[in-house]
Amino acid sequence: MKTIVSLLGLISTLMITNAPAWDRVLLDTYTAPQSWEISSQDLGLKPAKPFSVRMRTLHGGRQEGVCIVDIDTGAMKISVVPTRGMNVLEAVAGNVRIGWKSPVSEVVNPAFIELNGRGGLGWLEGFNEMVVRCGYEWVGHPGMDKGVLLPLHGLAANIPASKVVLSIDEDPPYTIRLKGELKEQAFKLVNFVIATELSTEPGAIHFSIHDTLNNEGDYPKEYEALYHSNFGPPLLDPGAGFSAPVQQVSPFNERAVGEVADWQKYREPTRDYDETVFNVVPYGDENGETLAVLHNATGDLGVSLGFNIQQLPVFSLWKNTDTLGQGYVTGLEPGTSWAYNRSYQRALNRVPTIGPKEQRHFDITYTFLADRSAVDSALQQVKKIQHDRPTEVRNTPLVELPKD
Amino acid sequence: MKTIVSLLGLISTLMITNAPAWDRVLLDTYTAPQSWEISSQDLGLKPAKPFSVRMRTLHGGRQEGVCIVDIDTGAMKISVVPTRGMNVLEAVAGNVRIGWKSPVSEVVNPAFIELNGRGGLGWLEGFNEMVVRCGYEWVGHPGMDKGVLLPLHGLAANIPASKVVLSIDEDPPYTIRLKGELKEQAFKLVNFVIATELSTEPGAIHFSIHDTLNNEGDYPKEYEALYHSNFGPPLLDPGAGFSAPVQQVSPFNERAVGEVADWQKYREPTRDYDETVFNVVPYGDENGETLAVLHNATGDLGVSLGFNIQQLPVFSLWKNTDTLGQGYVTGLEPGTSWAYNRSYQRALNRVPTIGPKEQRHFDITYTFLADRSAVDSALQQVKKIQHDRPTEVRNTPLVELPKD
Amino acid sequence: MKTIVSLLGLISTLMITNAPAWDRVLLDTYTAPQSWEISSQDLGLKPAKPFSVRMRTLHGGRQEGVCIVDIDTGAMKISVVPTRGMNVLEAVAGNVRIGWKSPVSEVVNPAFIELNGRGGLGWLEGFNEMVVRCGYEWVGHPGMDKGVLLPLHGLAANIPASKVVLSIDEDPPYTIRLKGELKEQAFKLVNFVIATELSTEPGAIHFSIHDTLNNEGDYPKEYEALYHSNFGPPLLDPGAGFSAPVQQVSPFNERAVGEVADWQKYREPTRDYDETVFNVVPYGDENGETLAVLHNATGDLGVSLGFNIQQLPVFSLWKNTDTLGQGYVTGLEPGTSWAYNRSYQRALNRVPTIGPKEQRHFDITYTFLADRSAVDSALQQVKKIQHDRPTEVRNTPLVELPKD
Repeated sequence: MKTIVSLLGLISTLMITNAPAWDRVLLDTYTAPQSWEISSQDLGLKPAKPFSVRMRTLHGGRQEGVCIVDIDTGAMKISVVPTRGMNVLEAVAGNVRIGWKSPVSEVVNPAFIELNGRGGLGWLEGFNEMVVRCGYEWVGHPGMDKGVLLPLHGLAANIPASKVVLSIDEDPPYTIRLKGELKEQAFKLVNFVIATELSTEPGAIHFSIHDTLNNEGDYPKEYEALYHSNFGPPLLDPGAGFSAPVQQVSPFNERAVGEVADWQKYREPTRDYDETVFNVVPYGDENGETLAVLHNATGDLGVSLGFNIQQLPVFSLWKNTDTLGQGYVTGLEPGTSWAYNRSYQRALNRVPTIGPKEQRHFDITYTFLADRSAVDSALQQVKKIQHDRPTEVRNTPLVELPKD
Repeated sequence: MKTIVSLLGLISTLMITNAPAWDRVLLDTYTAPQSWEISSQDLGLKPAKPFSVRMRTLHGGRQEGVCIVDIDTGAMKISVVPTRGMNVLEAVAGNVRIGWKSPVSEVVNPAFIELNGRGGLGWLEGFNEMVVRCGYEWVGHPGMDKGVLLPLHGLAANIPASKVVLSIDEDPPYTIRLKGELKEQAFKLVNFVIATELSTEPGAIHFSIHDTLNNEGDYPKEYEALYHSNFGPPLLDPGAGFSAPVQQVSPFNERAVGEVADWQKYREPTRDYDETVFNVVPYGDENGETLAVLHNATGDLGVSLGFNIQQLPVFSLWKNTDTLGQGYVTGLEPGTSWAYNRSYQRALNRVPTIGPKEQRHFDITYTFLADRSAVDSALQQVKKIQHDRPTEVRNTPLVELPKD
Repeated sequence: MKTIVSLLGLISTLMITNAPAWDRVLLDTYTAPQSWEISSQDLGLKPAKPFSVRMRTLHGGRQEGVCIVDIDTGAMKISVVPTRGMNVLEAVAGNVRIGWKSPVSEVVNPAFIELNGRGGLGWLEGFNEMVVRCGYEWVGHPGMDKGVLLPLHGLAANIPASKVVLSIDEDPPYTIRLKGELKEQAFKLVNFVIATELSTEPGAIHFSIHDTLNNEGDYPKEYEALYHSNFGPPLLDPGAGFSAPVQQVSPFNERAVGEVADWQKYREPTRDYDETVFNVVPYGDENGETLAVLHNATGDLGVSLGFNIQQLPVFSLWKNTDTLGQGYVTGLEPGTSWAYNRSYQRALNRVPTIGPKEQRHFDITYTFLADRSAVDSALQQVKKIQHDRPTEVRNTPLVELPKD
C-alpha cells in the first residue's frame, strides 16, 4: 500500500529538529521495507525543479522482496537497489537511459543466487546494474586464492543494505542523500562495514557516490574495491570513444593484445566479439582528481566519472561490444585493483591493506553529458589533466594468465 | 487473509474485455502473492462440474514464503508451485493422490537450498513433487562438464516463476490455464525464458503441460529438458507395470544390467534396493505421438503420459522401489536427454542446440486412469502405437560410467 | 503491528481445554510470523515474578525476515531465533549479558548464507549466538568426507524452524516451554526431524534445552551433535576458569599442545592468540549427570551447563581469547563428537549411528551463576562428581591433522 507521509507527521519532524536536514529511516531492524513516497511539495520545499523520492518492492521470480528507491531530481531519475548492495540500477534523464540492457531482466534478490555456483560465476545471474560495487575483500575473476575459491567480483553487490536513510537538506541546494550500510562480516575472517551514500540535487543530471570502508576488526586486512560502472546505448554506439588522462595502458590478457591500437574506440555490436579489457593507470591533477569520459560517435551524448587517484589509483576499461542481445556494454571501472583474481594482484602491489578501525573513502561523481558542449567540456578537462604528460602503451599484459 | 473477488470487480473485468477468456494476474513485478480464490460460481459460469482456483502461501521452516496454486476441477485438485518452477506438487482425484511421498516433507523455498551443496546433490533437499522440471541448460547427474560442476537436474525446479496468470475460457469447455514464466538467465552464459502453461477443464481428471523454451539470447545454446514425473502408491504397488511403445531399452548403468529382464515390472518396497534406471527410446505413431503408462498390479488404477517424440525423443524410467519411508516411487521421464551428466550426453547426440530467438515446445498430457477400462484402453493405445514393431533390448549401458 | 491477544480469545482458549497448559502456535504452515506478545497478566496467572513472551521480526540487511522470540522470566530475558535452528541468541539477567559479542552484528537469515562458500566456512557469516546447534549429520571442521565437502558445523543452525509452539503451564511453577521443529531432510540422504524445546520458569535465571533427534528414515544413519555454547565478558575475563569432572583431556591440535598446562585458565584478550581447543572426556555421577562451569576471575559470576554423559559423552573446550573486537569468547561444547571433520572421527568411535525410527535425546541446563555462593556451589558439585577419580592429561592430539 502506498503511504503518503501526512503533513502532520512532517510538521512534527520539522519541529523536533533544528538541524538543516530532514531525515527518514526507510529501512532498518525495526522498519520493514514498504511502498512510500515523498515530494519536495510534501516537504514544503520550493526548489527550482520539484523532486520526489519513492520506495517500492518488486515481486515474482528471483526479484521477490527486492526493494528499490527512486530519486527523481526533476531532471534525472536515479534508481538504487538497497537489496543489492545499494547498487545503482539506472539513471534516466529525459528519454536517455544511462545504464545498459543485460540479458538478466530481473533485479535479483541475493537469496536466490549461489555466488559459488557456475564455477564461481554465480554473480552473473544478477548482473544488470549501472553501478555495481565490487569488493571489499576481493574484486576480481573467480579462482583459488590461498586454497579458497573467490567467486567473481566479491560479495558487496549481493549484500542487502542493513540501514537505509533518506536525508534532504532544508536549505538550498536541497541536497538529497540516500545512505545505506553494508555489512561484510564473518567471524575470524572479516569485519567490514561500508557506509554508502549517494547524493544529488534537485534539477541535477549528476550524482555522487561517497563510500566509506570501515575495518571494524582488530587486525589489518587486505581489501580491494572496484566500481563496475556500465553503459550501453545510446551513450555507447559504433565509433563511441573513451577518454581519460592516461599514464599507462596495457591489455588485460592475450585476447586484448591485438586491440591495443584501438583501445579507446568502440566497435559496432559485433558477433563473437565477447570482451576486451584494458588496464589503465590514470593521471590526476595536482590534487589527484581525474576524469574518465565515454561519449557517443557524434560526440553529443556521454557520461563522465570524476574520481581521485589517491583513492582509486587504477582503472579497468571493459569493452563488451558483443551483440545487443548478448550485452553491448562498456564498463568504466575505477578501483584500487585490477580485475585479476586476487592471487595475481599481490605481486602487482594492487592488494592494499586497511588497518584496524581505519577508513578508506571512495568518491565518484557520475555526470550525464547531455549535449555536445558538455562532452567537449569534459574532453577538455581530460586534456587539461593529462597536461601533455606521456602515455605508456604496453603491448603485453601485466600478468601471464594460464591458457584456458 | 482470504480475499474473495467482489462481484463488482468481476463484472467490470468481464465488461472491459470482449475476449473469450477471463484473465487474472496472480503474481508479477507489482502484484505480491496473496491468499485468494475464485470459483466458477464467482465467475458466473455454469460448467457441469463447478470448479475453483485458490492461491495460498506457506510459512515456517524452509517453506517460508512458498506460494501454491490449487486448481480444483471438481474431479481433481492439482497443486502447482510457482515458487518452485511451476512444478506440480500433486494431483488428487477422489481419495487417490497422484504423486508420491518423499522424505522431504516441506515445499522448499529455493532461497534455502544450495544446489551446489552436498557435492551437487543439494536439489534432493527439495525433491518431493509429482512433476519436476529438469533443465534447461542441463538435466543430468552432478559432475564436472568443461571445468564447471553441474548440480543435479539443472536449475529450473528452483527458479521462482516471475509472472503467474490464471486464464479461464468463458465458453465451454471453460478451459482453465495457469501460466508462469521462468527466467534462466546469466550474463554471457544463458538467456532462456520458459513460458509454462498447465491446462485442464472443469470435471477433468487430466491436465496438460505446454512449455515453450525461448532462447532469447543471440547465440545458439545447448539445452536439455526432462520432465521428472513421479508416482508412488496407490498407482505404484508390488506387481505394478510400465508400458510404452519401445524401440530400444538399455540399462542406465551396471546396477541396472541385472534387471533388464524385468525392466517393466515393479517390486514391492524393497530394503536396500535403491534405484534402477532404464533408458528408453519410444516409438511414436505417424505423427510422433506416444503414450507411457504406469498401472497398478490389479490393473484398475494408473496414469498415462502422452507426449510427442519429435519434442521429447527419449525417456528415462526411474524405478526407486526402496522402502516406503525411503521413497517408494517411480519416475516416468520424457526428455530430450538421458539422466547422465551432460559431459556424457554429447557423444550420444543427446545435447541438442537451440538457435537464437528459436523456441522449443514440450507438451505432456497427464491422465489419471481411474478404473480398469481406462487402464485397458491406455494399454491398447500403447499396443496400437507399437504396431508390432520390434524392441531392441540392450544388455549394456550406453555409457561406461566410472566406478564409484 | 503489535497484536495483543484479546481477553476473549484467551478465555475461549482456556475454556476449550481442560489440559493444564496453555498453548499457542506462533509459526507453522498456515501461521505467518507476526509481532505478538503475551504476559502472565494477560493469561490471568499470578506467579511470584510476572513474565512475558514476545515475538518480533527483524528487517534490513541479511536479517530481513528473521524471527525472534523473547522469553522474559522476570529475572532473565532469553532470546530464541526460530529462523536459525531455534538457537539461543542471548540471555540477559539484570545487567549481565550471557552470550558474547561477535563481529557478526546481524542475526543472519540462512537465505543469505552459502554454507559451502569460503571453502566451507560460510557458517561463520552468521555465527554470533550463545547456543548454536551443530549437527545433526556432522558437526566438525570443513573438509571432504567420502568425496563430499562437509561445511563447518553442519546444517542445523541454518535450518528455519518449521513449527513453533509456546506452551505455558497453568499451574505452578508455570513452566514456560518454547518448542520448534527442525527438518534436516534430503531425498535418499537424510530424514532427521529434531524436536527442540527450551523450558524455563517465571523468575528463573536458568533454562533447559530438551532436544529429540528423530531418525524418521528407514535406514540407520550416522549422526553427530554438538551444542556450541558461547560466553564472553563479563563471565569470561582474564583469569577466568573452567571446571568440570574430567577423565581425560587432550589438545585438539598442535597449536593446543603448548597450552595443555594451562588448559583450564583463560588469558586476557590477546592479540594473535586465535584459538586453542581441548578435547575433554567428562566424568558423570552414578546417573551420568555432569556439570561444566565457567566462572570469572573473581569467582562471583559464571555459568554452568548440566548434561548427561550418556547423551553427550564428550566435550570440546574452545578458548578463543583473542582481542575483544575479534571475538573474546569461550565455547563450552557438550557433544556426541569432537570438532574434527567427520572423516577423522570414525576411527575415534565418535560417529554414532541412529537406527530407523529411533530417537536420541539431548538435554542441557544452562544456569546463570549470579554470585560467589552460586559459583562456589557449582564448583563443589564438580568436585563431588569427580569424586577423586584421576584425570588423564594427554600431551598429544587424538588425531594427527595435516599441516596447513
